[in-house]
Amino acid sequence: MQNGTVKDERLFNFSAGPCMLPVEVLQECQDHMMNWNGSGMGVMEMSHRGKEFVSIYNQTVSDLRDILQVPDSHSLFFMQGGATTQFASVPLNLLKEPSNAADYAVTGSWGDKAFKECQKYGKANKVCDTKSSNYTFIPPVSEWKVNPEASYLHYCANETIYGVEFKSTPDVGLPLVSDMSSNFCSKPIEVSKHTLIYAGIQKNLGPAGAAVVIADKACLGNAKSICPTLLDYKTMSDSESMYNTPPCWSIYVVGLMAKYLKEKGGLAFWKEWSEKKAKILYDAIDGSDGYFICPTAKDCRSNMNIPFRVGRGDEALEKKFLEEGKKHKLVTLSGHRTVGGCRASLYNGMPIEGVETLVSFMREFQEANPE
Amino acid sequence: MQNGTVKDERLFNFSAGPCMLPVEVLQECQDHMMNWNGSGMGVMEMSHRGKEFVSIYNQTVSDLRDILQVPDSHSLFFMQGGATTQFASVPLNLLKEPSNAADYAVTGSWGDKAFKECQKYGKANKVCDTKSSNYTFIPPVSEWKVNPEASYLHYCANETIYGVEFKSTPDVGLPLVSDMSSNFCSKPIEVSKHTLIYAGIQKNLGPAGAAVVIADKACLGNAKSICPTLLDYKTMSDSESMYNTPPCWSIYVVGLMAKYLKEKGGLAFWKEWSEKKAKILYDAIDGSDGYFICPTAKDCRSNMNIPFRVGRGDEALEKKFLEEGKKHKLVTLSGHRTVGGCRASLYNGMPIEGVETLVSFMREFQEANPE
Repeated sequence: MQNGTVKDERLFNFSAGPCMLPVEVLQECQDHMMNWNGSGMGVMEMSHRGKEFVSIYNQTVSDLRDILQVPDSHSLFFMQGGATTQFASVPLNLLKEPSNAADYAVTGSWGDKAFKECQKYGKANKVCDTKSSNYTFIPPVSEWKVNPEASYLHYCANETIYGVEFKSTPDVGLPLVSDMSSNFCSKPIEVSKHTLIYAGIQKNLGPAGAAVVIADKACLGNAKSICPTLLDYKTMSDSESMYNTPPCWSIYVVGLMAKYLKEKGGLAFWKEWSEKKAKILYDAIDGSDGYFICPTAKDCRSNMNIPFRVGRGDEALEKKFLEEGKKHKLVTLSGHRTVGGCRASLYNGMPIEGVETLVSFMREFQEANPE
Repeated sequence: MQNGTVKDERLFNFSAGPCMLPVEVLQECQDHMMNWNGSGMGVMEMSHRGKEFVSIYNQTVSDLRDILQVPDSHSLFFMQGGATTQFASVPLNLLKEPSNAADYAVTGSWGDKAFKECQKYGKANKVCDTKSSNYTFIPPVSEWKVNPEASYLHYCANETIYGVEFKSTPDVGLPLVSDMSSNFCSKPIEVSKHTLIYAGIQKNLGPAGAAVVIADKACLGNAKSICPTLLDYKTMSDSESMYNTPPCWSIYVVGLMAKYLKEKGGLAFWKEWSEKKAKILYDAIDGSDGYFICPTAKDCRSNMNIPFRVGRGDEALEKKFLEEGKKHKLVTLSGHRTVGGCRASLYNGMPIEGVETLVSFMREFQEANPE
């Protein structure tokens, strides 16, 4: 066992997801691996229909509904396949005749992927697309080219790759659908303004392998006949995520995370905490006389994913920065493989010491490597 | 920590899946929870594109290919959504024009569900259906009503609920597709005779949350335009299961299981072992003068799932049997909720002591509760 000095041995892992989880949560997974709560079996071994796992499931849903303040009008359940499967589920369930059309705000590559998947099933319209400016800002909602006949408007609440985050709920008079994968449970959200919210859990809420879906019950039951059964929101809502065997372990860890987030003070606390961590890093970038550069417009800078360039974008210096960072326990700081540079993801599991160590290393690096 | 007496505290859990895993595998999960292999992070926290997880993934695929003897003609990868999602993926990827038709051997309720999902996408034909005799036997292949125009023939290699198992590969001159969820990795299989094999892993191979797919490379690239991207076999094969974030933890545990199965002697060993465990229980049932009854025809009795009635089908006695069994550490012995009675599932994780304890309790119970 490695508990003695485990905290010292652990690295500051800035991965965009899967990502660091709190030591308290990992400890609980470890302690109950072979025998959960005296049941004589581990969570991975339990029948999903047995009383032990059903109690885990119910508590998880209850805690999540509580911290997210999900109203009775909305159902909360789990699905598999991450946000990418949701890109198909959304149009398969929510496109309506006669328009069979949907609006998409494209403020990054995830929004663009959702848009493209919709094209398989109906008429997808972009209300905005910031690709030509490298996805660095969000155009004002008043400028969006909305189709009033659209069945819904889809937006990605936080673009992981470019670090662009909506700071308020965009209201355009259409049913709202949001991909909240990468800032879910980092702050309170306005559930009742949304017809549908979905989020892959592998950021602020657990390991990979499940997505949380929150659906207005009024939107259920309208899936197209070609919708695979397991992608039908009504099927999954009615069966409480158990039409077939759900990803039990992932749901269990989400339950531990939900309990942990709640005990620390709920999403109001985590919002403050995320803002505090992000501010430390943004201040360091903005105070570096342009040595470090974050390209994202200030009014939509993400508190979760912070892309930045080193040495005014000098690739050799960036490589050196990533290499030397490892000596300070700073790892997984590369930018997304499609954009390069660096990126620090500051999800709920990233301790403030991680951000402080990063900022202190940045100052050292700049001094030692003047341009 | 609970390692001191953990083996004594653990129950014999006969769940049809998720189900018991070997203590050695759980121990490894436990030991590396916070720090895998000195990497400074747990497996749930790793970027799926980092060198640590990629090494886990590659070793897992390599060990699985090795024990299953997958030829170079076939690709092996992971998908999410269990066998139920595969019920849709199969017709979405494999139905071919002009017939757009497929054959299904329905020898239990899983085969029937696969058949029904296919009807969404094309013409599904039942070559046999044993529902009227409660799915207790498999009709000879020579009697199957095969459609020579069908794109493929689908069969369920082992029906979990009714305990009906194919003892050889059914050859009907069509491309073969098999749902092997509940006997996968319990014995060697003839991969090259199949166009496609899929299996939810939560039986002999790990926790819930992933399915293994083995596809003849020649069948890839023909998905219908309405196929969700994540259900497209070519997309998942080309991206080595990582078009998006895969269910990393589930894949990791599959890797540990594959290593364990290999070290113990490979699938030839596990076949012998499964047959031995199943024989102990079938012999006890058949030697009980009809007190215990297994309704399944002897030539297709499953080595994995053994349904049986107690006291010639007396429901009050069955309830008592299930209740008293718990005092002997025998749990999750209820039959599937749709059929009642009892069922013992004897997957790779079930130790022989579990079967011996069950059989010994059965004898005691019969003596103490004569009809």
